[in-house]
Amino acid sequence: MDYRDAGVDISAADAAKDRIKALARSTFNSSVLTEIGSFGGMFRPDLSRYREPVLVASTDGVGTKIRVAVAAGVHDTVGYDLVAHCVDDILAQGAVPLFFLDYVALGKLEPAKVEAIVSGFAGACAEFGCPLLGGETAEMPGTYAEDDYDLAGFIVGVLEKERALPRGVREGDVLLGLPSTGLHTNGYSLARKVLFDVLGYGVDTHLPELGTTVGDALLARHRGYLAALEPLLERDRIRALAHITGGGFPGNIPRVLPEGLGARVRRGSWETPPLFRLIQKGGDVSDEEMYRTFNMGVGMVAVVSPGDLHEVEHSLERRGEPSFVIGSVVPGTGVEWED
Amino acid sequence: MDYRDAGVDISAADAAKDRIKALARSTFNSSVLTEIGSFGGMFRPDLSRYREPVLVASTDGVGTKIRVAVAAGVHDTVGYDLVAHCVDDILAQGAVPLFFLDYVALGKLEPAKVEAIVSGFAGACAEFGCPLLGGETAEMPGTYAEDDYDLAGFIVGVLEKERALPRGVREGDVLLGLPSTGLHTNGYSLARKVLFDVLGYGVDTHLPELGTTVGDALLARHRGYLAALEPLLERDRIRALAHITGGGFPGNIPRVLPEGLGARVRRGSWETPPLFRLIQKGGDVSDEEMYRTFNMGVGMVAVVSPGDLHEVEHSLERRGEPSFVIGSVVPGTGVEWED
Repeated sequence: MDYRDAGVDISAADAAKDRIKALARSTFNSSVLTEIGSFGGMFRPDLSRYREPVLVASTDGVGTKIRVAVAAGVHDTVGYDLVAHCVDDILAQGAVPLFFLDYVALGKLEPAKVEAIVSGFAGACAEFGCPLLGGETAEMPGTYAEDDYDLAGFIVGVLEKERALPRGVREGDVLLGLPSTGLHTNGYSLARKVLFDVLGYGVDTHLPELGTTVGDALLARHRGYLAALEPLLERDRIRALAHITGGGFPGNIPRVLPEGLGARVRRGSWETPPLFRLIQKGGDVSDEEMYRTFNMGVGMVAVVSPGDLHEVEHSLERRGEPSFVIGSVVPGTGVEWED
Repeated sequence: MDYRDAGVDISAADAAKDRIKALARSTFNSSVLTEIGSFGGMFRPDLSRYREPVLVASTDGVGTKIRVAVAAGVHDTVGYDLVAHCVDDILAQGAVPLFFLDYVALGKLEPAKVEAIVSGFAGACAEFGCPLLGGETAEMPGTYAEDDYDLAGFIVGVLEKERALPRGVREGDVLLGLPSTGLHTNGYSLARKVLFDVLGYGVDTHLPELGTTVGDALLARHRGYLAALEPLLERDRIRALAHITGGGFPGNIPRVLPEGLGARVRRGSWETPPLFRLIQKGGDVSDEEMYRTFNMGVGMVAVVSPGDLHEVEHSLERRGEPSFVIGSVVPGTGVEWED
């Protein structure tokens, strides 16, 4: 009896490793000191521009979006999503990425599938200037169905201590929404239940109101807001950032506001994209549940001083980044809705 | 329809979060600047003692050891294992830990189970001086069976660039083995197949040759070698460290040796613990397969200059850390066996 009899194929793992190495190498910068495959990835950060550097670390998964990827047989987008999600999480503290690591666990280690997933990581890592410093690929028959898998991502970034967000949020500050590209990585259990179970759609169902298939709409890549927001962070024009992830608006905006302040959000201030309307109608889901499960078309909310609003909007517009005022900071707690 | 109908219970998640926060807080040191629950964990490293600090990052899982934990209903030990495994991975580069993050994905989010897992993380994090800086808990019905879960860990450590391992390994260097406490986190698919499927044991089967139950023997905690080895790293008495994980001896010792050098290992130089002998006999597993799947009782191999051997052995012995010479560095590649 050997390891292969027990369902673990070490040769397949080695083939996958070679493909992963080449992809990872394409994301390296001069701070990376090791090849993928060392016990640990070595990274020499250039901290010379920081007076008091603080590391910011975060970990996340992409939830059951993976089950849509499996159904559609498309695996690079969830890889991209995971990196973008992590980048946005530390951006919300005001940090820029240093490096990323991944964990991929599969029921069966198919090298082509692993390569597709990792090519998604590598594409996003290159885009966000965040080397893919290391990772782990685990074949776990019995835990995962043969075609299924799970992903976890880990990111480390850096910021100047005195510039950590949130910082100086006050009553009257403006909430500026930046559009999402879709569901990003949240609410997929509910979305799948409504679209696949209740409405009976498949990933290949083409819907005119979406202008694409259900699968493509659900797999739209998580947007990373680094390019849009970094110039504004450097000019100190952002007081707080809320990444609209699990928990939606009430779960994410209040956590960046000081004690005694809440958010007043006007739902009509942006147009809810068709995919969210389709899910709400198809599942007869309440407004409350929609806004605490999904991003509803707003992936990141910036808290901006009213005096800086014009400059911020202008800067975003000049760089082709749409934004819209969705509300303001008011006395209270949580999120208060206006229609 | 709401998120709970889709199998995701946000209130259970909130209850688990409170328990996790208290456990994590117990591991914090003065470098930790945030509470668990921020978008990213903030950590201000004290790098003042380093001339050229290099961050070392690693990620890992504990594989199908989790299925033993599920069968036994014991969940803190795999949490401990994950941290110890990560600590040992970066130790093999010569790094000491700065902080740790975890990813926990479950079929059903039971707060008591999550608390047990995280208490394992926290215990190990406290022991290794490595704050539990953040984490993600994901409920993914459909991906994981209701009682099943997976874990991924992520560690960041630091070392002085010029002291990174491996460094200066030469022909004639001594391989010093440090005992493992059991299977650590590798080879569980094969071990489970032999012990449960072939031999028909259960986790509660008491075996006199093990002096305990099969479950307890399989769940023995992964040993972290930081306390044993840190004093020797500080005195510059270690040329390389091979953490014996997936791939066993041939998969891990050669990767720390320079081109043109291999390892000669004498199998009889330490006593193989009963659990490995039981698996080998029960599954009729070849020696080759055993030594490339399991640690066989040696969890970490230190490469030491012959001139330093006496001091290293004496230092370990004085601190109650057993060790044994298992072989030497020889011209060649891979691992060459002696009986």
